[in-house]
Order: sequence, then C-alpha cells, then structure tokens
Amino acid sequence: MQDVSTLVAQAREGRPRAVARLISLVEGASPQLREVMAALAPLTGGAYVVGLTGSPGVGKSTSTSALVTAYRKQGKRVGVLAVDPSSPFSGGALLGDRVRMSEHASDPGVYIRSMATRGHLGGLAWAAPQAIRVLDAAGCDVILVETVGVGQSEVEIASQADTSVVLLAPGMGDGIQAAKAGILEIGDVYVVNKADRDGADATARELNHMLGLGRPGGRVTGARPSSRRSPRGRRAWTRSSRRWRSIGPGWRSGGCSRSGAPLVRPGRSRRSR
Amino acid sequence: MQDVSTLVAQAREGRPRAVARLISLVEGASPQLREVMAALAPLTGGAYVVGLTGSPGVGKSTSTSALVTAYRKQGKRVGVLAVDPSSPFSGGALLGDRVRMSEHASDPGVYIRSMATRGHLGGLAWAAPQAIRVLDAAGCDVILVETVGVGQSEVEIASQADTSVVLLAPGMGDGIQAAKAGILEIGDVYVVNKADRDGADATARELNHMLGLGRPGGRVTGARPSSRRSPRGRRAWTRSSRRWRSIGPGWRSGGCSRSGAPLVRPGRSRRSR
Repeated sequence: MQDVSTLVAQAREGRPRAVARLISLVEGASPQLREVMAALAPLTGGAYVVGLTGSPGVGKSTSTSALVTAYRKQGKRVGVLAVDPSSPFSGGALLGDRVRMSEHASDPGVYIRSMATRGHLGGLAWAAPQAIRVLDAAGCDVILVETVGVGQSEVEIASQADTSVVLLAPGMGDGIQAAKAGILEIGDVYVVNKADRDGADATARELNHMLGLGRPGGRVTGARPSSRRSPRGRRAWTRSSRRWRSIGPGWRSGGCSRSGAPLVRPGRSRRSR
Repeated sequence: MQDVSTLVAQAREGRPRAVARLISLVEGASPQLREVMAALAPLTGGAYVVGLTGSPGVGKSTSTSALVTAYRKQGKRVGVLAVDPSSPFSGGALLGDRVRMSEHASDPGVYIRSMATRGHLGGLAWAAPQAIRVLDAAGCDVILVETVGVGQSEVEIASQADTSVVLLAPGMGDGIQAAKAGILEIGDVYVVNKADRDGADATARELNHMLGLGRPGGRVTGARPSSRRSPRGRRAWTRSSRRWRSIGPGWRSGGCSRSGAPLVRPGRSRRSR
C-alpha cells in the first residue's frame, strides 16, 4: 500500500493514477480515510464546484461534456465526478458516463471519475463529498459534479456545490408540478434543455412563474436548445456553449435574458449557508 | 382522543373521517401507533396494491386517476395514496395530487390521501407502508400508491406494491440510460406514456432491448399515448383505458403485445420475494 503523503504529492503534480488511488481510498472507506482527509484538508478550497442535476434523460451528461469543453478552452483544469445508479438487486452498476464523455478521455487537463450510488439516496454517492476534496486538492480549477438522475426530493447536491444547475426538459409536468417543493427550489441556474422540442416555451414560462412566486427579483427567461435533434438546435447549442464558456464564479450574480441563454436567477453560495 | 377500536370499526364501515384520523395517527408517529397497527393487523391482506412510479412529469397522477375510473367501473373500492415532495428549506409541501384528482373527490367509493415525503428519500413517505395497511383494513379492494417523482435510484415502491408500474415519457435519455441500474429494474409493467410525442417508438424499442437483456422471455411491445395532446392521443387513451380496466391481480402473469397496450413483462409478486 502506498504512502498517503506520496500519493497526495503525486496527485498535486496532476498524475491521474494517484488521484484515482486517493478517490478509491475514500470511496472504499479505507482505514487510511482519516489520514487521507487530514493530508488533503490544507490543500482544498481552491476549486469552484458546479453541480448539475435533473431527472433521468434531461441531458446532464451532454451538458457536463459541453461545460468541460468550454472550461478547457479557458485553459482550466477540470475534474468531473459523475454519479451513476447501482442496482437494488445485484448491487452492480453500469458507469455510463465514462462511455459518454470519452471525447475528453485523452485530455490530460480533464480528470473524469464515475461513482456508483451504492444504495445511497439523495442524488450523490456516499463518498462524493470526499472525492470532491480529492479533486480540489489535486489542483482542479473547476469540479463538475453530475448527479444520478434525480426525482423531486433528491437535493443533496445543493449542499456540496457552489453553483447548482438544475436541468429540465420540455413537456414534463404541469403548473402544479412546477409549484411543488424539492428539486426546483435548489437551483442557482435553471436550464431548459432540448428546447427545440415542443413545449419548451411553456416549460420556461411555468418555471419563471414558479421562480417569481418565490423571489420576485429572480425572474429571467430563455431556453437552451437540444444539441442533438435539429441543425437549428445544433447552431443554437454552439451559441449557448459560447455563453456557457464565459460562466465562472461571477455568474451567480448575473443573469441573461436573451433567447438561447440559460435560465438564470441570482444565486447564493451554498458554502455560506 | 378517540378510542382506537372505535376508529377502526368506523373505518371498516367506510367512514372517510375515521380512515383519515387513523392515517394521521400513523403519519404523526403518535404514541398510539403500536395500538393502531396491532388493531389493524388481523384486518389486512385483502387489498391488492398497485404502485405507480416514474420521473417528475411522466403522467403518474393522470394515469392513477384513469386507473381509479377503471376500477370504479368494476365496482371496486379504491384507496389512493399519493406522495408529494416536501421543501428541503421550509419543510412545507404542496399536496398537488389532491388538486389533480378532484374528479373523484365526491365518490364515496374512493379514498384519496396525499402525504408529504417530509425529507424521506426513496420515493415514498416514511409512513406510507402503515398508511397502506390502514386503507387495506378499511376495506379497499385496490390501493394505488403514486410515488413522488423519482430518479434512477428511488425504488422503495417495489417492496410495498404487489405490482409496480414504471411510467416513462418518450425522448428521455439514450440507450446507455436504459441499460443502467435502478428504477428500470423494478417494474412489473412498463408504460411509455405520452406516446403521441416524438420518440415514443424509440423509447419502447430501447426499453424492450434492455428488458430483453435481463430476461429473454419478457419482451413485449406497445406504448400508451398521451391523454392530453391530440385527438388521436385522446382516442387511443380511451382505448387503452378500456384495456387497463381489465387489469387485476392476474395481469402479472399476462402480457399484451398489440400497439396501444401497456408494456408488460411477466412479473413477480413483491411480497413473495
């Protein structure tokens, strides 16, 4: 078994194998967990954590991948933590996001790790907070945390991310849905993805109405089209990727209202809560 | 405070107020909880429990309401337990399903109860199993349990329902999604709802492919159209409602393959697991 301080030093140098080993140590609740966390503690706090959450199939992986591309163009080191579901029967998991983000696999400035929920509910894996700290200590500028596909009640990401992005797809649910509690309360940024589908405007309208109920100052508009369906969608995706590229810690205080921009409402830092 | 045995006797007579009071007792974890459950125990076991689950906005409430109508036409007493999310910040909840199922509100043969998750994860409320027993003891022939909008990992319903119905909407996710673990493993019946939307056939195909991987004998096909979008959809919904009407305990061993029918694979009783 390797020395923890050696591993940490190697992770600082950006060696992916050392980062992987450290995350495996925290994920497996190794006896060295306390030692690892103690070694990491003074090195953390530098990374900006963006959480992406939403129902299964709204396009979390595609959006995460687009954000990675955008941040890489800024020259930032990016860590991705993608959570996938475990089987309630076999305990096994298909870590599908490793397949989906293969375009970034050969980029040394990107570290991608899938974690299985292993029965943990709430949207994250049990060891996700510790894994975020490992990536932070390893020198990532931005850490993108993609939750497992969540329902209305899985809001754990809000306690871990500096900015929580809630993704929606058009045509899901009605006004009563939007007025309900849970996932729609935690976002700093709301994205209506796949917006070239029918019902995108209605979804954005209902969402705005709901957000307006809670915080009168927070109403902004816009929708992001799907990257995959139509040429129109692809063009608009490229446009909004460019907009996303400029997203950084400052986006919390901003908002964009033109069509094609992500739905944004003024956010609050999760860490200061 | 009313005597528990009086309440139970009144609930057996079908008095909604007594049923409501008993559920409130179990939901509030009253000191009388043990007494209530002991009084109910010999009276339970007669009801058939159908669970409806799926992502937010796939049409769980609409389908539940349609099933209520169908079972009522068979003259069965129906209990509905609908779970709604609680706010992670305020603790409050909008019990939206009481609004949605108002068409059945004046029917004395239907008892509808909304419960808030109150922070419980997994898709149900903490007191849902006890509330199911109250409805069972109160003489409901069928109990429909509608979960809160769930993600990929919230599969608690499978341990409570005799038959678990997993609802999906077209165009959510891809083949990798379908192959993942979690919610797609627990269904006895799969319904592709809102099937007049684009992508319904693809969703049914991916689902069939995934189900075929797990159990070669379980592949059947079909999709149920949306009740709301088009006249075509409305007509087909009526057709498939008629089919749903014939659904009873026997449906677990059956399967229907004609277009317009629910996606079915041979099920297993959750209770015998």
